[in-house]
Amino acid sequence: MKRVGIYAKRSNPDAVRVARELASWLEERGLEVFLEEELASQIGGCQGYTEGTIPAMVHLIIVLGGDGTLISVARLVGDLRTPILGVNLGSLGFLTEITLDKLYPVLEQVLAGQFTVSSRLMLEAVVRRAGQEVGRYLVLNDVVINKGALARIIDMEVNVDDDYLTTFKADGLIISTPTGSTAYNLAAGGPIVYPGLHCLVVSPICPHMLTNRPIIVSDEAIIKVEVKFHDEDVVFTADGQTGMPLQGGDVVEIRKSRSSTLLIKSPFKNYFEVLRTKLRWGER
Amino acid sequence: MKRVGIYAKRSNPDAVRVARELASWLEERGLEVFLEEELASQIGGCQGYTEGTIPAMVHLIIVLGGDGTLISVARLVGDLRTPILGVNLGSLGFLTEITLDKLYPVLEQVLAGQFTVSSRLMLEAVVRRAGQEVGRYLVLNDVVINKGALARIIDMEVNVDDDYLTTFKADGLIISTPTGSTAYNLAAGGPIVYPGLHCLVVSPICPHMLTNRPIIVSDEAIIKVEVKFHDEDVVFTADGQTGMPLQGGDVVEIRKSRSSTLLIKSPFKNYFEVLRTKLRWGER
Amino acid sequence: MKRVGIYAKRSNPDAVRVARELASWLEERGLEVFLEEELASQIGGCQGYTEGTIPAMVHLIIVLGGDGTLISVARLVGDLRTPILGVNLGSLGFLTEITLDKLYPVLEQVLAGQFTVSSRLMLEAVVRRAGQEVGRYLVLNDVVINKGALARIIDMEVNVDDDYLTTFKADGLIISTPTGSTAYNLAAGGPIVYPGLHCLVVSPICPHMLTNRPIIVSDEAIIKVEVKFHDEDVVFTADGQTGMPLQGGDVVEIRKSRSSTLLIKSPFKNYFEVLRTKLRWGER
Amino acid sequence: MKRVGIYAKRSNPDAVRVARELASWLEERGLEVFLEEELASQIGGCQGYTEGTIPAMVHLIIVLGGDGTLISVARLVGDLRTPILGVNLGSLGFLTEITLDKLYPVLEQVLAGQFTVSSRLMLEAVVRRAGQEVGRYLVLNDVVINKGALARIIDMEVNVDDDYLTTFKADGLIISTPTGSTAYNLAAGGPIVYPGLHCLVVSPICPHMLTNRPIIVSDEAIIKVEVKFHDEDVVFTADGQTGMPLQGGDVVEIRKSRSSTLLIKSPFKNYFEVLRTKLRWGER
Repeated sequence: MKRVGIYAKRSNPDAVRVARELASWLEERGLEVFLEEELASQIGGCQGYTEGTIPAMVHLIIVLGGDGTLISVARLVGDLRTPILGVNLGSLGFLTEITLDKLYPVLEQVLAGQFTVSSRLMLEAVVRRAGQEVGRYLVLNDVVINKGALARIIDMEVNVDDDYLTTFKADGLIISTPTGSTAYNLAAGGPIVYPGLHCLVVSPICPHMLTNRPIIVSDEAIIKVEVKFHDEDVVFTADGQTGMPLQGGDVVEIRKSRSSTLLIKSPFKNYFEVLRTKLRWGER
Repeated sequence: MKRVGIYAKRSNPDAVRVARELASWLEERGLEVFLEEELASQIGGCQGYTEGTIPAMVHLIIVLGGDGTLISVARLVGDLRTPILGVNLGSLGFLTEITLDKLYPVLEQVLAGQFTVSSRLMLEAVVRRAGQEVGRYLVLNDVVINKGALARIIDMEVNVDDDYLTTFKADGLIISTPTGSTAYNLAAGGPIVYPGLHCLVVSPICPHMLTNRPIIVSDEAIIKVEVKFHDEDVVFTADGQTGMPLQGGDVVEIRKSRSSTLLIKSPFKNYFEVLRTKLRWGER
Repeated sequence: MKRVGIYAKRSNPDAVRVARELASWLEERGLEVFLEEELASQIGGCQGYTEGTIPAMVHLIIVLGGDGTLISVARLVGDLRTPILGVNLGSLGFLTEITLDKLYPVLEQVLAGQFTVSSRLMLEAVVRRAGQEVGRYLVLNDVVINKGALARIIDMEVNVDDDYLTTFKADGLIISTPTGSTAYNLAAGGPIVYPGLHCLVVSPICPHMLTNRPIIVSDEAIIKVEVKFHDEDVVFTADGQTGMPLQGGDVVEIRKSRSSTLLIKSPFKNYFEVLRTKLRWGER
Repeated sequence: MKRVGIYAKRSNPDAVRVARELASWLEERGLEVFLEEELASQIGGCQGYTEGTIPAMVHLIIVLGGDGTLISVARLVGDLRTPILGVNLGSLGFLTEITLDKLYPVLEQVLAGQFTVSSRLMLEAVVRRAGQEVGRYLVLNDVVINKGALARIIDMEVNVDDDYLTTFKADGLIISTPTGSTAYNLAAGGPIVYPGLHCLVVSPICPHMLTNRPIIVSDEAIIKVEVKFHDEDVVFTADGQTGMPLQGGDVVEIRKSRSSTLLIKSPFKNYFEVLRTKLRWGER
C-alpha cells in the first residue's frame, strides 16, 4: 500500500482537522496521499484531485465522516474493489465502525497488511419507462420507492424472477441489502440481516394490508417493481442519496451488481457489538 | 325531518345515478332535497346550492361515496351537529357503513325517527409559525406530519399538556382520533380504538428509535408537536385531504374540537362486524 | 395521617433494612407503624399483624420493593382506597416511582398533606366453568390467558358487551388496564396507554392471523373470553401472580372493579419521565 | 421408482380412505407399496412395516395429511434423501402443497420422472447440561425455547459462532429455518424467508426489550442459546412436536444438519402463490 485516498465530510470541521493530521501522518510514513479538490483546498498545502478519479489511483481509501459519507464514496469506487476504512467522527456507525481513538492503531495494522475485509454486496437498480432505461444506480444500502407526503398510497406490483409475488398497497417499498438492513428497513419494521449473507429484504412501508410482512429473497433474484397507474408524487431513491421521480407504469428492476464494497473490519469490535451499541440491545 | 341534503362523489357515475333516484324517492315522500350545485346540474331538473351552505339548511345529510367523501362533508358540517347517513357505493367503509342494498330500508327507519347516532370526536389543529397562527383545521380522522420522499428524518418534539413526552425521530407522526385509528394509524402499526372512547393515538411513522411505540392519551390533552430545525420538505395533512407545508420551528397544536360528527349507525351491523369484514379478522 | 402500614419485599435485605429505618423515622414523628408479622420479626422489636388486616387499620401504606410487591399489596387493599406510596429499591418502577433517595423528602410532603394521588382502575375477572363461578380475581395490571409451552395454539372467542368481536387463534390473550399497558402488553406489541384513561387493551400473544391487532375498548365494557375446545395446558393469570388452569369451554369474564388503587404521585417526576427512563425513549 | 411408501394422518378418515385408493392405484401400475403397520391394518389386506424402516426401502414417499404429518415423516427420513410428495387433505399447506384433486395428475408426472425437488435445510439441535449431551433432535421448521404459562421471563444468552450476540429477556426464542419461517416465526413477528436460502431466523417471543428484533444469520452459523439461572418451567421444542424440559444453565446448540428434506414441488403452483393463498396477501 503506497497510495492512500482520503475523503472527509467537509461540512464537519473535525473531519477536516483529522484529515489534515492524517495526511501528515501518512506522508511521514512515506505514503502518497490523494485528497479531492475541495478538501485539499480546505486543508491547504496539498494538491487535490477530482473526487471520482481517486479510487482508481489508490490502494486504500479512508473515509472520515458517517455512514452517509462512506456510501457516497462506495459509489465512486464502483467495481474497483479498493478497500475502504470507515472512521466515524461522531457516534459509532454501522459502516464506519472505526472510532477516532482507534484510527492510528488500526491504520498501523492495516499498513502492515494485518486486516480482514468484509465484502458487501451492492445492487444495480435500473428504472425503465415504457421499456426504455431512464435511470441506472449503484446501491450499497437500499432502493426505496416512496410516495410524497401528500400523495395517496401506491400500488406496487412485485415480480421476483418473473414470478408474481404480490401487489403491495403501501406508502412505499424498501429493497435492502444485508448492509442496509439496519438503516431504513429497520425503521419500517424489517429484520436485521447479518452482513455477508446472500439475500435481500423486501419490506413494505406502512402497508395498508395488515398481512404484508417483510420477505427475504435470494441476492441472485431479479426483482421488478412496477408502480401502477398513479398520477401523483412517487420517488425512487438509492441509498437515501440519489434518485428520480417515478411515473405510473415505471418499472424498477433490481439485481445484484458485479461491484461490491470492501470494508476493512475493525479488529476491536465485531458486528454484534456494533448492533448492541447502536440498538442498545440487552439493556432494559 | 323535512329537509335532506345529499352529497355524492361526483366522479363516480353510480353515485350520481343513485343521487338522482334518492332525490326522487325523498321528494315522493314530501321531503325537500338540497343538492350542491354541480351535483344538481349533473342530475338535472333541480336547484343547486353552494356546498358549504347546505348543512345549515337541512335536518339530515346523506353521503353517497366512500369514507373520503364523508370526511369532507363532516368538515362542511363543522359544529352544526347535523346527522350524517353514510352510504358506501363500493366496498364497505368504516364511516360509510350502509351498503347500497340497505339504503332505502335504513332510510325508512331514519325518517320514522328510529335510529341511533354515533358521536365522533373531532380535533382542531392549529399551525403556529413564530408564534403566529398560520393554519387552522377541523379533523375527523387524523393529523399527520410527514416528510417528503426525499427529505431526511424529522425530529419532532412532542409535549402533552405542557409535559415533555419525547422527541420522535421518524418519517412522520400521526395523531389519530378513535375514528381515524383504522386509517393511516393502522398502517403505521398503531392499535384499533373503539369509536366513542375519549382518547387519541400518537403513532410514529417509521421511527428510527426502536423503542418508540404508539401511545394513547386523553382526548382532553393538548398535544404540541414542534418540527425541529429542518430545511427540507415537511408537510402537515388533515384527514389526508387538506394541509400545508411546515418549516423548522413550526408548532402544530392539536386539541379536541367542540365540533363532533354525528354518524347514523347501521341497524344491520355493528362496529366489530365492520372491523372483521374490512380487516378479514378471524380468517386464516 | 396517624397510622402507617409498611410492606417490604422481604427477600431483599435492603428492603428490610430500609423498613427498619423507616419505622423508626415514622415513630419518631409520632406515627403508629404497622408491619406484617414476618417483616416485624425480621426487623425485631415491634409487633406484627396479619398482612391482610393492615390496610383497614392505616391511613397510608408504604411499599418498599418493586412493582410486583406493590401489585400484591394493591390486592390486599381491595376497595379500601388506602393510598399507597411505592418506593423502588432497585431500578425505577412504573408503579413504584419514588426512588430511595427521595423517600424522606417525599414522605415529609405526604405527611404534611401535600400530595396528589393517581387513581388506577382495577379489573375483576371471574372464571366460569359450565356456568359456575370457579375463580374470582382482583387485577391491577392485566389478565392473561396463555397456553403452556407444549400446547397448541388456543382459539379464544371474545365478546364485548355481548357483541362478538373475533376468535383469536394465538398463544394467548392479554386484557390490560392502562396501568398494565407497559407490562406484558408492551412485550406482546400493544400500545402504551396513559394511566387514568377509561379504557382497556386487548392484545393477542403471537396471533396466527396476521390481521390481528391490539384493540382498545372502554373500561365500561364487559369482556368475555371463551377458551374453545382444548384438552391441553391453558392457564389464566392475574397480574402475573395468581391464577388457575383453564379447560375448554371455560369463560373468563372481565369487567371494571369497584376497587381502584390510589398511588401517591412523585412530585419529582411525571409519567412521561418514567416512560422515557424505562423505555429509553429519545435515545438512539 | 419401483417402491413407494405411504404415510397418512391416521386420525383423519379421509386420509385413510385416500391411502387405500392410492395404494391400489400404485399397485395397478406395478409399483410396490409400503405402509406402516397401523395404517396397513386400517386399510386391510396389505402388509405393514415399522414406520421407521420404510424410508430406507422406498424410492418415493407420499404423505397424506397436513404439514405436521410431513414434518414427522421428514424426521424418519433423516439423511436418506428420499423425496417426499406432500398431499394436503384440508386447506393448502406450506409443505404439503399438492391438493387432493391434483394428486393423480402430479403422481403421473412424478412416476414419469418429470418433477423438480426443493431441498430444504434441516437443523440439528443438541441440548447440553453441565457439558453432557442430554438430547439431540433433527429439525425441519424450528427450534423453540419457551417458558411455561406461569413462569417468569427467561434470560437467554445467545452466541453465534462463539461471538456473543445478546441476552434476550423474553417469553422465548425461535430459531427457524427458511421452511419454518412461515410457521411460529411469523406469529412472533419474524419475516418470511424464501425456502432454499442459506440462512436462519432468530426471533424473540414477546421480548421485554423493545429494541429486540428478529435477526437473520447464516445457516453455517453455530448458534448456542444458554438458559440463564431459572428455576421454573422452561421447555425446548423441535418443530412443535418433540422436546424436553430445560434447566437453568442448559445450552441448546443449533447447527445445520447434514440431512435435508427433499420436497417434490407442485407443477401447478409456486411458493409465492402458496404465500398469497395462505396469508391472503394482496387482499384488502
